[in-house]
Amino acid sequence: MSKGIVSKDEDYSQWFNDLVIKADLAEYSPVRGCMIIKPYGYSIWEKIQAVLDKMFKDTGHSNAYFPLFIPKSFFSKEASHVEGFAKECAVVTHYRLKNDGEGNIIVDDEAKLEEELIVRPTSETIIWHTYKGWIQSYRDLPILVNQWANVVRWEMRTRLFLRTSEFLWQEGHTAHATSEEAVAEAEQMLEVYADFVENWLAVPVVKGRKTPNERFAGALDTYCIEALMQDGKALQAGTSHFLGQNFAKAFDVKFSDKENKLDYVWATSWGVSTRLMGALIMAHSDDAGLVLPPMLAPIQVVVVPIYKHDDELENITNYVKGLTAELKAKGISIKFDNRDTQRPGFKFAEYELKGVPLRVAIGSRDMQNGTVELARRDTRTKETVEQAGLADRIEGLLEEIQQNIFKKALDFREENTTEVNDWEEFKRLLDEKPGFLAAHWDGTPETEQRIKEETKATIRCIPLNNKQEEGKCILTGKPSKERVLFARAY
Amino acid sequence: MSKGIVSKDEDYSQWFNDLVIKADLAEYSPVRGCMIIKPYGYSIWEKIQAVLDKMFKDTGHSNAYFPLFIPKSFFSKEASHVEGFAKECAVVTHYRLKNDGEGNIIVDDEAKLEEELIVRPTSETIIWHTYKGWIQSYRDLPILVNQWANVVRWEMRTRLFLRTSEFLWQEGHTAHATSEEAVAEAEQMLEVYADFVENWLAVPVVKGRKTPNERFAGALDTYCIEALMQDGKALQAGTSHFLGQNFAKAFDVKFSDKENKLDYVWATSWGVSTRLMGALIMAHSDDAGLVLPPMLAPIQVVVVPIYKHDDELENITNYVKGLTAELKAKGISIKFDNRDTQRPGFKFAEYELKGVPLRVAIGSRDMQNGTVELARRDTRTKETVEQAGLADRIEGLLEEIQQNIFKKALDFREENTTEVNDWEEFKRLLDEKPGFLAAHWDGTPETEQRIKEETKATIRCIPLNNKQEEGKCILTGKPSKERVLFARAY
Repeated sequence: MSKGIVSKDEDYSQWFNDLVIKADLAEYSPVRGCMIIKPYGYSIWEKIQAVLDKMFKDTGHSNAYFPLFIPKSFFSKEASHVEGFAKECAVVTHYRLKNDGEGNIIVDDEAKLEEELIVRPTSETIIWHTYKGWIQSYRDLPILVNQWANVVRWEMRTRLFLRTSEFLWQEGHTAHATSEEAVAEAEQMLEVYADFVENWLAVPVVKGRKTPNERFAGALDTYCIEALMQDGKALQAGTSHFLGQNFAKAFDVKFSDKENKLDYVWATSWGVSTRLMGALIMAHSDDAGLVLPPMLAPIQVVVVPIYKHDDELENITNYVKGLTAELKAKGISIKFDNRDTQRPGFKFAEYELKGVPLRVAIGSRDMQNGTVELARRDTRTKETVEQAGLADRIEGLLEEIQQNIFKKALDFREENTTEVNDWEEFKRLLDEKPGFLAAHWDGTPETEQRIKEETKATIRCIPLNNKQEEGKCILTGKPSKERVLFARAY
Repeated sequence: MSKGIVSKDEDYSQWFNDLVIKADLAEYSPVRGCMIIKPYGYSIWEKIQAVLDKMFKDTGHSNAYFPLFIPKSFFSKEASHVEGFAKECAVVTHYRLKNDGEGNIIVDDEAKLEEELIVRPTSETIIWHTYKGWIQSYRDLPILVNQWANVVRWEMRTRLFLRTSEFLWQEGHTAHATSEEAVAEAEQMLEVYADFVENWLAVPVVKGRKTPNERFAGALDTYCIEALMQDGKALQAGTSHFLGQNFAKAFDVKFSDKENKLDYVWATSWGVSTRLMGALIMAHSDDAGLVLPPMLAPIQVVVVPIYKHDDELENITNYVKGLTAELKAKGISIKFDNRDTQRPGFKFAEYELKGVPLRVAIGSRDMQNGTVELARRDTRTKETVEQAGLADRIEGLLEEIQQNIFKKALDFREENTTEVNDWEEFKRLLDEKPGFLAAHWDGTPETEQRIKEETKATIRCIPLNNKQEEGKCILTGKPSKERVLFARAY
């Protein structure tokens, strides 16, 4: 059966796009660069949300909701933030439509806003404006707030999940009495993200710091987790920013400490988005479709009956009822696909496409023999196994699959992370064996910029706990004390 | 202690506003008519979301996500929808800001959109545009999709939670092969809403149909649930619409049935919003603050220790640890407020203000006697009870409080629902004893409109399973076969 997906070796980018569409994850909308997240795709996002939300709450955070619109003037208040965000934004200028009398809907020019509103590209400005009213003394600190929301950044070149004009995300915004506490918060949230991405998405990440060039606009320090996709390009999967007192100063947010001394508040912000869906898809999937880690798969086990007569189906159905109860008790989600409008082969292909980790097929002979056919999505292998003890076996296999998927991605990353000491070699590898290149850099933004211009590779991060060693900058030959990770990136 | 809340008898509207702000539920933002939902308010909304989301899934629905922006032209496609929604909307006309060179951020006039985008006031148009691609045959039906999202309707007069320019809601959009199935869906979702509002929010509702005048723009039939607030004004708490084939025709969505015959698809939509927070607050609360039904209270039980010395606190803390474990096992949320920065009286007032259903106070003498002081928020009564069996007692009390709050609201509604047969009496009651007025109406939009103009009362609904009886229209004296419910409304 052709699934209408191009091979990933042939055209990785098209393969990704085909996969997202054919697996019913998302599609483009009539609005430029905005996507529709379809029910199957959204059910994965809901799982991501639920797990992260619990992690945020377990670390003391609460959710809140701030307005979609931000007054234009707010963007002028924090100088470096301006440069980063007051650019490609959707701007609301009017608040009314009217009928022109000939049946056409037109914008009512009499309903022009005095000050234009920006659809939030991120919410630091409106949140810090609000925090001014919430914070007077050290007793009001820390504020540990997160928001689940949609944001808009008008993108010229868009890709489903990876770069869309509107996307869904969470943005944490915290306020602290000391610099140390804010740094600890930013570091803690980086750990939360790394934990989530490695243990749930099964995608290994490098934890690190961004260079000043690549920092979030307004941050003193940006921590990030970087993952490697199967085409050797890097993907930034989450960021956590230490914002210092920049936003507190821009919005005049001071607090009185225990000694009644006034000081500006210290801030962090941190976020992950529907981009994680892109990482999830690109890190594991193959030409047959999605490969989902069991811990985030909306359907973990699918059962397909194979039968000719109704009494055979009845027999199988009775067995599946028992299995379903056993799996539900273990917290494992199972779907029994007994549609009579589709043949088993069609169903096999469909669930393969959708990345269901385990498939159980049961025919009449299986029922006589007390067996089932059990197929793994990750290895594309199948075997005939006993019905006795099947639920336990499935439970064990799901764990094994989760680990195997992670291991495979980790092996891939290790094979595609290379220490490079020579500029020609650096350029050659980027074309011939793309991946993470660990190279020395002289620490200047100018060199970083030149490397980017010549190779399209950027410094993804300076890894945390980086080994210190003497070396020479890959481009300039100037002295350097540590390697940084370069890659072309999404 | 003054909580800064005006008495509700003195100024109901101000009381509501004070309450929302002082109880940390929400506040106005610098953006006209948009609110900030604070962590405590948002935690109630999260509970509402979680319960409703499960109810939707239990009835077969999945979540998805559609774009925030809708092309302007979409609003011209469904004629009656235009009249209802293509009015007070936020309009995006530009997609870029720039620096004017003097440090000011201005809108870049070169980045003007070819077609203006409307920030969704509701999503029927973009969703039916999308469904065209999803539906070919009866096998693709039904589509049972829900979306949790923010929407914007530019309101001139706003009130926190009740009427804000941006609000949060869910909107279900379903597609069916037959009219009967769509009607059954619309009715089912009305039942879901009624069940939720009565059994979780503890607010009794009247289920009914809207008159054609009051229908959703584009609907053939609008079902609604109507609740009565403590000031005698009605509040529409949820609506479910049978849309017929209007949107399918507007967006040309046809399906082939089993006989391969083409027909337009049948539709419903249904929604509830953060307005439910307004209903929750206004239906139960009093001059001392919020009264929350235990099933939606973020904190169900708060424990306040009363002590002078640290060893007393240690003693109390040990006891509370055991109680906490017992309550957690029962799924009851408990907070131990051992802050040493506030006195017990301050804490009592704070939790009263925040509507925590049960308060446990424990002092040293209590510890000696094996007792605690247990205070109910709904009745504002307290008693000294044994520590032995306290967890069971709390569990029982929470159920009792939930029922008591509902009963109180139901009694109030019954006392304030009056059958009226005389026009002067009708007008007098609206001023002197506002509530639901059950009166005959001649069935014409003209009469309905005249009554609205003269009294500001609207027909809230024609109750389902309404008693049929001969009568005369309250205004025109023309014959009528059933009473409808009038009220002034939020």
